[in-house]
Amino acid sequence: MNRIFGQNHIGYQESALGDHVFFGINPKTNQQFESVFRQATTEEVDAALEKAKRAFEVYRRIPVEKRVAFLKAISEKIQANKEALIHWFCAESALPEDRAETELNRSCFQLEYYANALATGYALEIKNDPANPDRKPAPKPSLMKMNVPVGPVVVFGASNFPFAYSVLGGDVASAFAAGCSVLVKAHAMHPHTSSLSAQLILETAQEHGMPDGIFSHLLAEDFKVGQQLVQDLRTKAVGFTGSIGGGMALQKLINERSEPISLYAEMGSSNPIVLTKAAIKNRTSEIAKQISASVLLNAGQFCTSPGLLFVEESAELKLLKEEMTHYFAQSDLQCMLHPGISQRYFERIKEHEVYAEVIYKGKSEGNFIQPTLAEASGEQFLSNPKIQEEIFGSYLTIIRCKDESELKSCLISLQGQLTVSLYAEEQEHLEELLAIAVMRAGRIIFNGVPTGVEVSFAQQHGGPFPSSLNSYFTSVGWDAIKRFQRPVAFQNFPECFENNKLKFSENTHFLHFLNGKYVQFP
Amino acid sequence: MNRIFGQNHIGYQESALGDHVFFGINPKTNQQFESVFRQATTEEVDAALEKAKRAFEVYRRIPVEKRVAFLKAISEKIQANKEALIHWFCAESALPEDRAETELNRSCFQLEYYANALATGYALEIKNDPANPDRKPAPKPSLMKMNVPVGPVVVFGASNFPFAYSVLGGDVASAFAAGCSVLVKAHAMHPHTSSLSAQLILETAQEHGMPDGIFSHLLAEDFKVGQQLVQDLRTKAVGFTGSIGGGMALQKLINERSEPISLYAEMGSSNPIVLTKAAIKNRTSEIAKQISASVLLNAGQFCTSPGLLFVEESAELKLLKEEMTHYFAQSDLQCMLHPGISQRYFERIKEHEVYAEVIYKGKSEGNFIQPTLAEASGEQFLSNPKIQEEIFGSYLTIIRCKDESELKSCLISLQGQLTVSLYAEEQEHLEELLAIAVMRAGRIIFNGVPTGVEVSFAQQHGGPFPSSLNSYFTSVGWDAIKRFQRPVAFQNFPECFENNKLKFSENTHFLHFLNGKYVQFP
Repeated sequence: MNRIFGQNHIGYQESALGDHVFFGINPKTNQQFESVFRQATTEEVDAALEKAKRAFEVYRRIPVEKRVAFLKAISEKIQANKEALIHWFCAESALPEDRAETELNRSCFQLEYYANALATGYALEIKNDPANPDRKPAPKPSLMKMNVPVGPVVVFGASNFPFAYSVLGGDVASAFAAGCSVLVKAHAMHPHTSSLSAQLILETAQEHGMPDGIFSHLLAEDFKVGQQLVQDLRTKAVGFTGSIGGGMALQKLINERSEPISLYAEMGSSNPIVLTKAAIKNRTSEIAKQISASVLLNAGQFCTSPGLLFVEESAELKLLKEEMTHYFAQSDLQCMLHPGISQRYFERIKEHEVYAEVIYKGKSEGNFIQPTLAEASGEQFLSNPKIQEEIFGSYLTIIRCKDESELKSCLISLQGQLTVSLYAEEQEHLEELLAIAVMRAGRIIFNGVPTGVEVSFAQQHGGPFPSSLNSYFTSVGWDAIKRFQRPVAFQNFPECFENNKLKFSENTHFLHFLNGKYVQFP
Repeated sequence: MNRIFGQNHIGYQESALGDHVFFGINPKTNQQFESVFRQATTEEVDAALEKAKRAFEVYRRIPVEKRVAFLKAISEKIQANKEALIHWFCAESALPEDRAETELNRSCFQLEYYANALATGYALEIKNDPANPDRKPAPKPSLMKMNVPVGPVVVFGASNFPFAYSVLGGDVASAFAAGCSVLVKAHAMHPHTSSLSAQLILETAQEHGMPDGIFSHLLAEDFKVGQQLVQDLRTKAVGFTGSIGGGMALQKLINERSEPISLYAEMGSSNPIVLTKAAIKNRTSEIAKQISASVLLNAGQFCTSPGLLFVEESAELKLLKEEMTHYFAQSDLQCMLHPGISQRYFERIKEHEVYAEVIYKGKSEGNFIQPTLAEASGEQFLSNPKIQEEIFGSYLTIIRCKDESELKSCLISLQGQLTVSLYAEEQEHLEELLAIAVMRAGRIIFNGVPTGVEVSFAQQHGGPFPSSLNSYFTSVGWDAIKRFQRPVAFQNFPECFENNKLKFSENTHFLHFLNGKYVQFP
């Protein structure tokens, strides 16, 4: 396939009016690709926002079946263009081909799965409370509540998931499923992948007769495009996956708006793993292997990569460290996503060396790294909050606690996390540990590693601050759609409740699902 | 009953250390009551926050049945102290006794209803996605998701609902139901009602063995106590019902925190009512009567009191105005809640006279008022956004539109509202009007008035900005509890799904409900 790169997509229109240019980079060689990408101008961003506003008014009223078909068709389009997508994904991110394929399939599954959240009615969250005209002292009116879309959504592509958290990712899929138009601020670390993905969405949208402006793709290297997008009053919600610094900067810009909106920022985590004494005693080698594999995966460039391992002093700790050192030292050097990412990684591990003793120092060459294993005492951990700050990339610090009480104090002092993992035996009394963990994280994993975020209606990807800016919502799974919807109650619409259908509203999406499928609650 | 007034309640301890004193006022006479209320000092607020933090750690782990019993017992305690409560409610608010009784019963119903949200499991929103070890390419882990409480909640008492949106109100009830400790900033317009209510909650808490600090009641006349409460990092969420100015000032203070939290501010609304041509033609007198009664109710001091009436030019409009004028002019003068409220009302109607022509000017005397009826053209409405700003108190402006197209333009230009009401005939095609209304409000009422907010699991009390600061949530109904909870997913806890019970977690509240009641989804 022969595609043109370098243009912004203002709805169905290509545009490249700006003077600020930038290039994609091959992180394996640090060499630029040849296409010239032009950062969107203020006028281009404005035009995209205006189109998104108008398209929203059309798209939100399109029957839900058409939204379902559109989402599924994007998935098909991705599969049909798999080769080109995987080519650019690997070229720009240095991630291996098997990862590209897994992530591509994840994107497709997400689109289809979110389509099913619509098709089954789950996403509308309909609740019916029927009237009771005989109630005393006043008659009770009927109420039917359901979700409606909020308006144009801005999505920031993430550096570490060029498919599944960028243009083809969960934020875009859930915003479309919610009934919103979408504007993506492309991530400058993978502009080809992003542009190609955008073109596939736009082709699908055109084939499905979707309104011009349902999707726009804006190129940006600096912060200006993002600032304009989140501060414009036509924007009604924002999805972001990235660093704490990035998320907080966006929130600050949003705080200056006259009309507040929700920013859903998933800002990473150190994903602590806790080993009970029984677990480390019974399963030292198995645990060392599992955790090492999780730390090693794709150079640890995941928001769920484990960075902290809490364990009590024990005879088996020495063996655990030896085995992990073995796995770390044996591992191939892996290229990081971008020279900017590896530079930051090297800075962070240098800072971290001041707080924790290095057990195994990973080798490195250019942007290629091996994981590093470090260690600190519980006392050190408690006295220095910097130890718990995330290092993006493979880096694990063992926190050696002198007893259970110190381990619990360490866990209590944790800042908000996406996940806490707990290796323990099933017969153990874990009430206390669970009661602590549940206040510190959005997902608790029993005898498993945090990497691998299942796309499920029961998933929660988002924890207390600073792992997320809005821990009431998830960025993965069916409930991710709710980030771009708000509830509306319909009072005294009698026919809703007589035959679950309002005759004068058959064509409006927001009452479209009242077709008898939904039983009354409870 | 003989109660002491004037003290703060720092958990179970009474305290009155401050020098800043204030008094309750009888709005009918503008005379002070004799009790001296002492605004909480910085130290008292700090002590209450520390107790709330500690009590939360205990309360969140108390079995859910005990929470249910506690909520129901508060309701019983209210009924047992009905006489004293109603005495102070009427004395401080000038609201009539029948309203006091209705509101008291509403408070009791809310407490019992929210207890049932727990007892039935609704409030935990449990979602089970079972494992599939045979899935290719990777096995699927089990996931179980449920809600956990966020931590200490600060509630601001509302001036216009001394029971149902203050100490005994929906915010406190839903925070307790969620599993949170609560700190109330008492509203200075009804300090006796507030203090008496607080004492009833504390007595009930003690009788039920609840931890010291589960509830505190802090007296305040100026903004300092509120500022300290919302900026303290021990506070994890805030509930507020009041003005746009008040809500926005709180949000600004919260934006300065290092850890962001959610402010649930319900900030009022003009609650537009729309009449179709067919409706006004067929039911002029019935509609005039219903709307007049809604405007008149308790001097219009509701967030859902109707302030705008949209109608097309028609032969029946003259009759509608005449009949409404009749009802307005015949109505008794009603005392407003407080001299501060009536003063603001008189200022607002003076401002409003510049934009709209007065049809019937309500009489007034001291803090007593009659409703005013005004009128403006659709053109005037469209050219002056100030016309649509809320006037707190009985005041209705008819917006006379020259045709359906102008009426729709007016509706499109509305800012966010709690409600939109639509009087129409069932056979009419209302798709367009509904599609506009649904984007402008949290509740759409068909052939009815906006006053009267049913406490229901299908209720949505909260609309787009500026009617609410967080339109994703409701402040009335079962879903109000979700404002003080966040979801947590439990991965790979195998026994959850084998017999819906985790043996090592029987005593922890957060897995307490896995007792077989909950079916797997979908």
